[in-house]
Amino acid sequence: MVIIMNPDATAENIKDVIEMIQDAGLAAKVMEGSQQRIVGVIGDKTRLASCAIDALPGVERSVSISKSYKLASREFHPQSSVIDVDGVPIGGDEFVVMAGPCAVESREQLLEAAEIAKKGGAQFLRGGAYKPRTSPYSFQGLEEEGLKYLAEAKEKTGLRIVTEVTEVEAVQTVAEYADLLQIGARNMQNFRLLKEVGRTQKPVMLKRGLAATLDEWLNAAEYILNEGNPNVIFCERGIRTYETYTRNTLDLSAVAAIKHLSHLPIIVDPSHGTGKWRFIKPMALAAVACGADGLIMEMHPNPAKALSDGPQSLTPDNYYDLMDGVTKLAKFMKDSGIKTQDL
Amino acid sequence: MVIIMNPDATAENIKDVIEMIQDAGLAAKVMEGSQQRIVGVIGDKTRLASCAIDALPGVERSVSISKSYKLASREFHPQSSVIDVDGVPIGGDEFVVMAGPCAVESREQLLEAAEIAKKGGAQFLRGGAYKPRTSPYSFQGLEEEGLKYLAEAKEKTGLRIVTEVTEVEAVQTVAEYADLLQIGARNMQNFRLLKEVGRTQKPVMLKRGLAATLDEWLNAAEYILNEGNPNVIFCERGIRTYETYTRNTLDLSAVAAIKHLSHLPIIVDPSHGTGKWRFIKPMALAAVACGADGLIMEMHPNPAKALSDGPQSLTPDNYYDLMDGVTKLAKFMKDSGIKTQDL
Amino acid sequence: MVIIMNPDATAENIKDVIEMIQDAGLAAKVMEGSQQRIVGVIGDKTRLASCAIDALPGVERSVSISKSYKLASREFHPQSSVIDVDGVPIGGDEFVVMAGPCAVESREQLLEAAEIAKKGGAQFLRGGAYKPRTSPYSFQGLEEEGLKYLAEAKEKTGLRIVTEVTEVEAVQTVAEYADLLQIGARNMQNFRLLKEVGRTQKPVMLKRGLAATLDEWLNAAEYILNEGNPNVIFCERGIRTYETYTRNTLDLSAVAAIKHLSHLPIIVDPSHGTGKWRFIKPMALAAVACGADGLIMEMHPNPAKALSDGPQSLTPDNYYDLMDGVTKLAKFMKDSGIKTQDL
Amino acid sequence: MVIIMNPDATAENIKDVIEMIQDAGLAAKVMEGSQQRIVGVIGDKTRLASCAIDALPGVERSVSISKSYKLASREFHPQSSVIDVDGVPIGGDEFVVMAGPCAVESREQLLEAAEIAKKGGAQFLRGGAYKPRTSPYSFQGLEEEGLKYLAEAKEKTGLRIVTEVTEVEAVQTVAEYADLLQIGARNMQNFRLLKEVGRTQKPVMLKRGLAATLDEWLNAAEYILNEGNPNVIFCERGIRTYETYTRNTLDLSAVAAIKHLSHLPIIVDPSHGTGKWRFIKPMALAAVACGADGLIMEMHPNPAKALSDGPQSLTPDNYYDLMDGVTKLAKFMKDSGIKTQDL
Repeated sequence: MVIIMNPDATAENIKDVIEMIQDAGLAAKVMEGSQQRIVGVIGDKTRLASCAIDALPGVERSVSISKSYKLASREFHPQSSVIDVDGVPIGGDEFVVMAGPCAVESREQLLEAAEIAKKGGAQFLRGGAYKPRTSPYSFQGLEEEGLKYLAEAKEKTGLRIVTEVTEVEAVQTVAEYADLLQIGARNMQNFRLLKEVGRTQKPVMLKRGLAATLDEWLNAAEYILNEGNPNVIFCERGIRTYETYTRNTLDLSAVAAIKHLSHLPIIVDPSHGTGKWRFIKPMALAAVACGADGLIMEMHPNPAKALSDGPQSLTPDNYYDLMDGVTKLAKFMKDSGIKTQDL
Repeated sequence: MVIIMNPDATAENIKDVIEMIQDAGLAAKVMEGSQQRIVGVIGDKTRLASCAIDALPGVERSVSISKSYKLASREFHPQSSVIDVDGVPIGGDEFVVMAGPCAVESREQLLEAAEIAKKGGAQFLRGGAYKPRTSPYSFQGLEEEGLKYLAEAKEKTGLRIVTEVTEVEAVQTVAEYADLLQIGARNMQNFRLLKEVGRTQKPVMLKRGLAATLDEWLNAAEYILNEGNPNVIFCERGIRTYETYTRNTLDLSAVAAIKHLSHLPIIVDPSHGTGKWRFIKPMALAAVACGADGLIMEMHPNPAKALSDGPQSLTPDNYYDLMDGVTKLAKFMKDSGIKTQDL
Repeated sequence: MVIIMNPDATAENIKDVIEMIQDAGLAAKVMEGSQQRIVGVIGDKTRLASCAIDALPGVERSVSISKSYKLASREFHPQSSVIDVDGVPIGGDEFVVMAGPCAVESREQLLEAAEIAKKGGAQFLRGGAYKPRTSPYSFQGLEEEGLKYLAEAKEKTGLRIVTEVTEVEAVQTVAEYADLLQIGARNMQNFRLLKEVGRTQKPVMLKRGLAATLDEWLNAAEYILNEGNPNVIFCERGIRTYETYTRNTLDLSAVAAIKHLSHLPIIVDPSHGTGKWRFIKPMALAAVACGADGLIMEMHPNPAKALSDGPQSLTPDNYYDLMDGVTKLAKFMKDSGIKTQDL
Repeated sequence: MVIIMNPDATAENIKDVIEMIQDAGLAAKVMEGSQQRIVGVIGDKTRLASCAIDALPGVERSVSISKSYKLASREFHPQSSVIDVDGVPIGGDEFVVMAGPCAVESREQLLEAAEIAKKGGAQFLRGGAYKPRTSPYSFQGLEEEGLKYLAEAKEKTGLRIVTEVTEVEAVQTVAEYADLLQIGARNMQNFRLLKEVGRTQKPVMLKRGLAATLDEWLNAAEYILNEGNPNVIFCERGIRTYETYTRNTLDLSAVAAIKHLSHLPIIVDPSHGTGKWRFIKPMALAAVACGADGLIMEMHPNPAKALSDGPQSLTPDNYYDLMDGVTKLAKFMKDSGIKTQDL
């Protein structure tokens, strides 16, 4: 940590800053600039993390230097992690695809969707049984009944199941049926829920919050890892910006940034990322090319009848067409040996 | 709802749209524009809310016209609501102030803060016992021990207690000690938690999410109201924007907007809103002038020793100075008869 | 400037960084942290401003410490500046109001608006003769003819004239008619235009860019000041955020921040700031209370017939009502001796 | 245009709205909803564009239906345009690359950069002679001297030249030397400058503004097209969001959206889009895969000595490596026949 003093800070001010640093068992070093003095902190900064050094008189601001997350960081774990999800590795050489409806609406709808997902080449079936909805009057999901349909679909198709868990009380139940627990964007900083899924050993897909910084996202993963569950997969699903033509702004540079900062895998959700079915394919292709480890997409046997997220769902035909392109591109990327970035 | 068709939509496309509307038990009306046709929906749009009309071929987009929240809306409740919090009315003629430390750190710290808050003229003591923190390694709060100190402080000073509840399991416990339950920004769309506080009759202060729209915020209130708890108070605490000089961007126009759209009271948190103690006073004065019903502020007996949020905490002296100005201004606004807006 | 090295930076990397600093005629000082080393730069950092130290191997990032603007900074000019605009001081004890239509539409409209502005108590008449419009097919302004009407309105009412200049070629012409040159939000970083108005001695009102940081805004002022024109007045007019209910998000904390960072006056535009006439009054009152030096507002004799910005224009009656409140509040703030902040 | 009335709008209010529509020579049609009435406008909405219908009593808001731009729209020009830039087609089957330093710093630096750009396979050399800089104290460019070096580099290498023009007075001069005129992000709504380049027949590369919506961007292109210059190429260069780890957030969905909405080509600038050299390659690959027509990137013979934008410049080695991947991927995309989207 570096503390930047005001140009008019007194010797007394500096003394107080040094004292607070030393009180925390750390060493301080003063550096004289031409206009301002700065104080460097030497030692483990987490001991000062909650200290209010910025509130001392004469302090302009402090700048954090080391990262607050450790377990998620590539610094301490240079090798990329591969997460095994019931036999399907994520983060290795193979690109994975998860597809299915936004919500599990009925047994028929789900089984039909599963067949289509399978036929197109996906390894996972997605489908929400617990639906967080903006309005209390919108469809809220079939809950455990939906989970049972997901389990049946797995049995029939062999597809792995990824589904969202929205509350602490449901973690055990969802973990019984799902192979991959999804933490949704609105719950990215529901710390109690993060801890709860951290206490299972189920792989967790952690979606980025609506307006979460990369640092907050990595720290949310840290909550899960810190409870003893090392199986975290990030999912970029678009961030909220001023642009309204797309539902969110898909931040594909987050793929490259997470790969640089962390050893954990990251997949991309172009459905929520754009909110418009016609932009899913180009964004899916872009995700493959920039080094993402997989995709999660909304596909519906009949999008126009979907109980939620219809406009961003692919029809079966659009899905097959997309999968054709994605599969070819993923194969090319692997075979060509193009390295997307130095990690 | 109005459905805007593509310029090249076919008669068949329009027929499908009309059919879907009629399937939902509603009536449709087509209007011919010079370049495009639009289809209007007549009837209760919540029946179509989850329908995926945008996914139909030939549809460009649909525009929602009526609001998805009802109980929170001023339309159906023209009179402003006054919420009674253990004898202190919020939303009426009197301006209320809530002050205290970010976190309850110790019995001594809290009781000292309570005396200062009281002396300055606040009606409420704030203080977090459950702390949602970005990093798992930061101080997470004293939990029930902290609640007991808050209760003791109430006994000693008569101040009402406002404190955050972050998880479903803690709602009953927090409700035993607190007069006003705070739902924090990160939990604004933790729908399970909203429902749980909605099942109590305790007044709830609902903070705006980091990047929540007014519509999402009003719908979050609707979750609480819809469970039978009518005692909701909004709290504007700044939104996340591109500007980083302030921690958040305090959106005071949200005060005027919420007053226009809803009958519920709204207070302002200039501490989180700005993140810098020196801007709290000017923003507190602005909040009074624009018609807010109260303020919630972080004040610490010794901000430089605070375990969290030090930089945005007022010292006791700054707090007294602020309260002097706020009290005078609130009195002036009341006496002068200046109406901030037509509701 | 402080340069933060990667944890795995080599001694060679550090040597290169030091060398680059010394090449720029500055001194470097290395500080050993527990995990990372940092290098401090001593001397006038503007000599390194365009240097690409971040691109050196082993560098994680650099943090700028001193400010890039000087003339606009309160650090080097502790006393608040009062700008004289044809006899009307801005930035002193008196609150100023500028009102008038978005665009000069006709002689009749403008003279009528001027009479209303005057009657309500404004000191300035606003009205655009050159209109920057999103679409090339929208009304683009009456240009010099509009300026003549403004001059006539000044003659008739004594109101000072503030009007926008959008292009270098028009600066001389606009300066002949206007008392205060407005640089619009879209031109805040039109550096050529900034320099041109900097070469006149006319006071300049510099609106904040749609998504400009405070630092960029202060640097834009620096362009004007650096050409020899010390008469700059900031105007906060709302920033672009994800919220769409209001046209922009009025950032009133920018008033407090600019007062803290700069000696120059700042006024507020609640019309563009909110985009809705019904929120102009509460935001105008808030602007007075938080220490702004004045207001600029859109008012139209008949908003429903306005050629631009109708929805955010006040009717004459709304304007009189607002002015009544603003005048009383401004008097109260002055008489009560409430200090909005320590500068 | 559709006008949504307040639930409590009177018959008189509706009559006034209809009258205003009819006054503009258009027809109105009222539709009764269950809670609210709406009024549809039939005819060419540009005749109402500047009308202030929202300001009429009883009006809640109006929703624009048809687009304000025509010449840029794919609706009226279904075939994708291919822009010829001195013999190099942009927007057709071949992917183009523009590379070079941020700023022209010296004859030697530029000629060296040109050789590297050429060797790597680029078709264009980029380099700024007029530099818009946040601070007036930063390096502002070599101006015409820089243009001469660019011309010399073209002569020596055959590379086409793309360079920024920042002011109306310089358009003629820059057009003499450049093959492609760049309008920078800060000038996207410098309408006077747009008109000026619109009066030449030189191809124009129009960068997206820092916080410009797609609609504003398309309208900015309309300014150029409307002056008679059909040769416009869009350039996505990242937008300003709350995320600060990357300099901007590269919005690759804008590529898909512009392709859908317009017939004009679009290229991507991953250098400004990310601000970090290490993320340029993955974003460049993503741009190829999602259907962009080309790339513009900053490359410097010695980034650590660059006078501007060093941290986001590629070294020659990184550039060759990137070009190897981009070239292979572009060839694969073309040969494989993968269609990124239906236009």
